[in-house]
Amino acid sequence: MTSVSAKSGRSLSDLFVEAAKQALDDAGVDKVDSIYVGNMMSGFLQNQEHLGPLMATALGREGVPTYKVEGACASGGVAVNAGVKALLSGLEEIVLVGAVEKMSGYSTAEVTTGLMMAEDRLKVASTGVTFVGLNAMIAREYMHKYGVTHESIAQFPVLCHQNAMDNSKAQFRKKIAIQDVLQSPLVADPLRLLDCSGIGDGAAAVVLAPKDAAKKFTDSPVEVAASAVASDLLSLYRRQDITTFEASKRASDQAYKLAHVKPNDINVLEVHDAFSILGVMALEDLGFAEKGSGTRLLDEGECERDGRLPTNSFGGLKARGHPVGASGLYQIAELALQLKNEAGKCQVPRAEIGLAQSVGGIGGTVAVHILRGMS
Amino acid sequence: MTSVSAKSGRSLSDLFVEAAKQALDDAGVDKVDSIYVGNMMSGFLQNQEHLGPLMATALGREGVPTYKVEGACASGGVAVNAGVKALLSGLEEIVLVGAVEKMSGYSTAEVTTGLMMAEDRLKVASTGVTFVGLNAMIAREYMHKYGVTHESIAQFPVLCHQNAMDNSKAQFRKKIAIQDVLQSPLVADPLRLLDCSGIGDGAAAVVLAPKDAAKKFTDSPVEVAASAVASDLLSLYRRQDITTFEASKRASDQAYKLAHVKPNDINVLEVHDAFSILGVMALEDLGFAEKGSGTRLLDEGECERDGRLPTNSFGGLKARGHPVGASGLYQIAELALQLKNEAGKCQVPRAEIGLAQSVGGIGGTVAVHILRGMS
Repeated sequence: MTSVSAKSGRSLSDLFVEAAKQALDDAGVDKVDSIYVGNMMSGFLQNQEHLGPLMATALGREGVPTYKVEGACASGGVAVNAGVKALLSGLEEIVLVGAVEKMSGYSTAEVTTGLMMAEDRLKVASTGVTFVGLNAMIAREYMHKYGVTHESIAQFPVLCHQNAMDNSKAQFRKKIAIQDVLQSPLVADPLRLLDCSGIGDGAAAVVLAPKDAAKKFTDSPVEVAASAVASDLLSLYRRQDITTFEASKRASDQAYKLAHVKPNDINVLEVHDAFSILGVMALEDLGFAEKGSGTRLLDEGECERDGRLPTNSFGGLKARGHPVGASGLYQIAELALQLKNEAGKCQVPRAEIGLAQSVGGIGGTVAVHILRGMS
Repeated sequence: MTSVSAKSGRSLSDLFVEAAKQALDDAGVDKVDSIYVGNMMSGFLQNQEHLGPLMATALGREGVPTYKVEGACASGGVAVNAGVKALLSGLEEIVLVGAVEKMSGYSTAEVTTGLMMAEDRLKVASTGVTFVGLNAMIAREYMHKYGVTHESIAQFPVLCHQNAMDNSKAQFRKKIAIQDVLQSPLVADPLRLLDCSGIGDGAAAVVLAPKDAAKKFTDSPVEVAASAVASDLLSLYRRQDITTFEASKRASDQAYKLAHVKPNDINVLEVHDAFSILGVMALEDLGFAEKGSGTRLLDEGECERDGRLPTNSFGGLKARGHPVGASGLYQIAELALQLKNEAGKCQVPRAEIGLAQSVGGIGGTVAVHILRGMS
């Protein structure tokens, strides 16, 4: 993965190639049978599509089948899922999956419009509501329904900033306190600046291969024990309950079944905390806490690196950064490092089974991956 | 498939839902395990991404995994290929693949910029060259290198317009003559208006299922005998020879191998004639004619419906219309109708094995499908 930065000054292909080459070098493979590129906003922000051959050309690997896969903010996770299916099809042996997003260098209005492409343009975006505005409605409803304070929820970004201190590739390496969150500028009531992930550029990549082939390349492969994607009604206004993401439940239920594990078996977790409230909801929707009680895990320190359920150990979307279409792949790359015991200062003890949850839009798409160490 | 029109006045989801419902009704299936949406330009033109859950919601099928797949003008073909892999993965049984593009209602400048998203924005589009300009360079070089006249090449759009006369869903149902092509307004020398496909809205869809399952739903399933995608150096300026698309050769070579057939076995063909020259080049790159002699097939009437190699029997991109990201799926839906003997007035005799070639950008991506009748 590349560093996440709002001042990268780099092109989509520069970013992608850095991550892809790292992944190929780390995997020790030279052959690539296909390339999947996860990305959300290149058409709108860069006026650039056809990212498949753009990246294959930049990597010197033109010829192979290439695909751009888009699932809004979950594009990275969805691209990995598509790559896993390609492997399972038996048609390909070595699949490179990368994801990239470049968000810097544009006006706030442009990025705001870009993010709202994840919602229904005609029925929702046209009203003028913003992406953070929709998430603020979720936060408000959640706090009201379950009697949870902003102070409790603010523990999530505090945790992420703490973890990012040890991640040299993180965008925000600055320790913050709960009071910093509560006193930061209001963005969309009740969400404040430090409840929200920032704007950044970045790319991440992984190499997928069948288990037997993977063992030829590396002594410490990581098993993709489950890869699941689910959708939901696209728009928030159509949902019965906006304090839960049905797609998170669907995708994680399927993933637990595929991997033959239970939430209790997970000992390293990456969740999609684009906004603080989403991190808390994820803990519940993925089965780690009862509805309305996700913050208790934070109260009890369970999500810290030495806790029972180390969460967002590299800083999560909030502090490692959230180059939207790429974040789902950062999560998976970070889990892989944890399970290979190569996470450096971010390493958590006993990392055996990891779960990554990537959310597209306001929960219209959720990708869940369960990875298992094999070394 | 929907009618192709530059005055549809319809939204992306309206178009998609019409095609998808037709496909589901025709297949007689109710269950859908996943939805793949091919599209190129929605981010730029409609400021709308996240087409997966948008379409799933519009269809009343939210919950299932959804994917937007982009491969420029070949997005439809590439989406079918991704759907085929999903089936082969064994994770899904009934896959809905649809593709949609809405190009009308925008200025020429907007659509021109949108189409150039298929080329390298930083290195090529930034020079000001347009998509038709690049294709004009190909035409000029081809005519020079092989001593082929514009008159010969113009037979291609004439054939397509003839065939579209019988297709009620075609955008241009008007017979034209070679002189009409040669005297139509110059767009980019040597390409004239009637060498070029138009701007249109449309959607097409197919339902994929394993062979045994398909037989339960319909008496006349169509076998996907091969699905292949290949890429090439993205930009024309980097290629050794711009009169051939290496990706067409690569994808068709692989498809012939997968299907265990040879070019001679193909008796119904759909090629990507976004510009007249591309139709001629396709006949060569796919193995039906020697390089430089593709027009001879037209001279000899072999591409007509009663010829040896009926080509673009519903009117092709030129006359049926070319809603870019959807065209690859129109081709496959049309081939399926031919092989089911349900093509009505467009029906060709002896349709047993069909091939569809869909080109992304200036040949940066090519998808080739070979279909076989099973009834």
